[in-house]
Amino acid sequence: MVQETIEPSKKVKAVGNWWLKVQEASKEHQSLDDAREFNESWQALTAEPGEVDYVETIAGGVPAMWAIPKKANTEKVLLCFHGGGFFSGSMYTHRKLFAHFAKNIGCRALILNYRRSPEFSHPAQVNDALSAYEWLINEGGINPKDIAFTGDSAGGNLAITTMLLARDRGITLPAASMPFCAYFDMEVSGASMISNLGKDLLFTKEWVIQITQMFLGEKGDPKDIYANPLYADLSGLPPIYIQVGGDELLLDDNIKLIELAKKAGVDASIDIFPRMQHTWHMAVGRAPEANDAIARYVAWIKPKLGL
Amino acid sequence: MVQETIEPSKKVKAVGNWWLKVQEASKEHQSLDDAREFNESWQALTAEPGEVDYVETIAGGVPAMWAIPKKANTEKVLLCFHGGGFFSGSMYTHRKLFAHFAKNIGCRALILNYRRSPEFSHPAQVNDALSAYEWLINEGGINPKDIAFTGDSAGGNLAITTMLLARDRGITLPAASMPFCAYFDMEVSGASMISNLGKDLLFTKEWVIQITQMFLGEKGDPKDIYANPLYADLSGLPPIYIQVGGDELLLDDNIKLIELAKKAGVDASIDIFPRMQHTWHMAVGRAPEANDAIARYVAWIKPKLGL
Repeated sequence: MVQETIEPSKKVKAVGNWWLKVQEASKEHQSLDDAREFNESWQALTAEPGEVDYVETIAGGVPAMWAIPKKANTEKVLLCFHGGGFFSGSMYTHRKLFAHFAKNIGCRALILNYRRSPEFSHPAQVNDALSAYEWLINEGGINPKDIAFTGDSAGGNLAITTMLLARDRGITLPAASMPFCAYFDMEVSGASMISNLGKDLLFTKEWVIQITQMFLGEKGDPKDIYANPLYADLSGLPPIYIQVGGDELLLDDNIKLIELAKKAGVDASIDIFPRMQHTWHMAVGRAPEANDAIARYVAWIKPKLGL
Repeated sequence: MVQETIEPSKKVKAVGNWWLKVQEASKEHQSLDDAREFNESWQALTAEPGEVDYVETIAGGVPAMWAIPKKANTEKVLLCFHGGGFFSGSMYTHRKLFAHFAKNIGCRALILNYRRSPEFSHPAQVNDALSAYEWLINEGGINPKDIAFTGDSAGGNLAITTMLLARDRGITLPAASMPFCAYFDMEVSGASMISNLGKDLLFTKEWVIQITQMFLGEKGDPKDIYANPLYADLSGLPPIYIQVGGDELLLDDNIKLIELAKKAGVDASIDIFPRMQHTWHMAVGRAPEANDAIARYVAWIKPKLGL
């Protein structure tokens, strides 16, 4: 538990204000296209990191974008899964965010544009993520020990489930995984779904259920371990470090995953940031709380990648 | 004159709504840093073009960003000067906008991060622009006939004044220049400064005067032709095509420049888009009015670049 309980900065409150706008817009019975377009401006929360190049590619059949800091060790790769409830967000909304991670770590980031719901329901997303991981190893010539996973929200889910799918198929695992503000519980059963209602400026339990239905599709099983890792045996996974906001509806998703990982003997830890909103990290380069959170990620991952 | 007088689309009205927010924010006695940070979110108006890579470089000592469409003819270059009143905006705010231009033309774009006012007043900006142009030719090996200039607002000024400086120094001129919604008149004397007051959702005459003072600095001369091309002899310049919104305070700046260019024997033309706001082009990829305007630029410039 991070101990700060001071008033959130004006800059980090921009994240909550943004979520209020998303919630408001969602009440206008937006089309899916309109909702996606609205969510694209998510990126405006994030400062430009600068001195980073961006190159689009196709990673194992999946569109993706390299973020290449000018001074990066190109042998080390952060494989990044964006959030957006599986139905929105893109490699563009999270370009600057993950470029900040990469620049501070001193590695490249590969930001994946996995197929989205509802056009493609589970397991399209985790299959795309695994394809990209295998492509990095087999086509990119990157050693798994030089790869780490990260992702926020729905992308945080993929940062775990992709490892489960890899493990179960006998594919060498990455060095570590760093989900944040992750969405794991396909039964939407966490106590924080109720206790943080109103504190979380984005979600309601009903909305999370709706998003889950789009993701799982008609025939989806909420206990499928490649969609809901809270039903999985997590043994054999590499070190996991999670960050989550204290005011999030998804708080319990993250606590439960770490408890389960510890029980399975995984090196797992969590930092809960009091009063922080869902994916406050997006304010990196502007808000001290986001800069601080990312500095902790960087300090945690660098030795694991040999940097 | 473009003949459409239909109601502006909902998507293009987003530009006016954005200007209202900028105006509102400016009343809060922002610091310069806050104003610049606020203006960075200008970019949220523009859709991602996609299939474009972005590589930062130093162009003749000036930071810049290449926008490289996957299918571009790399021998042809659009040299781009961003707007923002000379004191704000950056190669980041205009990354997507100029990438749309480049992608549709089928060339590369070089987006320049020239030094900004008030820390650097005129002629820092035009000197930076000329340095980048010379770098393109001498270091980049690009033929002047394969280069076109473009820029919006303050950047539109540079798209003309940089040619004047090049001409007067005996440097071969580019193939063409395409300013839009440009800011030329350092005396802020246009009739549209009054007649379009209230229609223009961003500017007031007082604000334009303030921006001009920052740009010219204490000792600046409002009749200096490298700051105010309305006092220049424009003869010898290559073809110029300007687009401007009918509701802009800057409307007359643009009309006057084209009149002057025609008198000097330059192949010059202007399209005035009724009811359009300052730099409505930023809504490209979303608003039909922005897509249409850029399609006209593309049709005009392609043959001039041999594309």
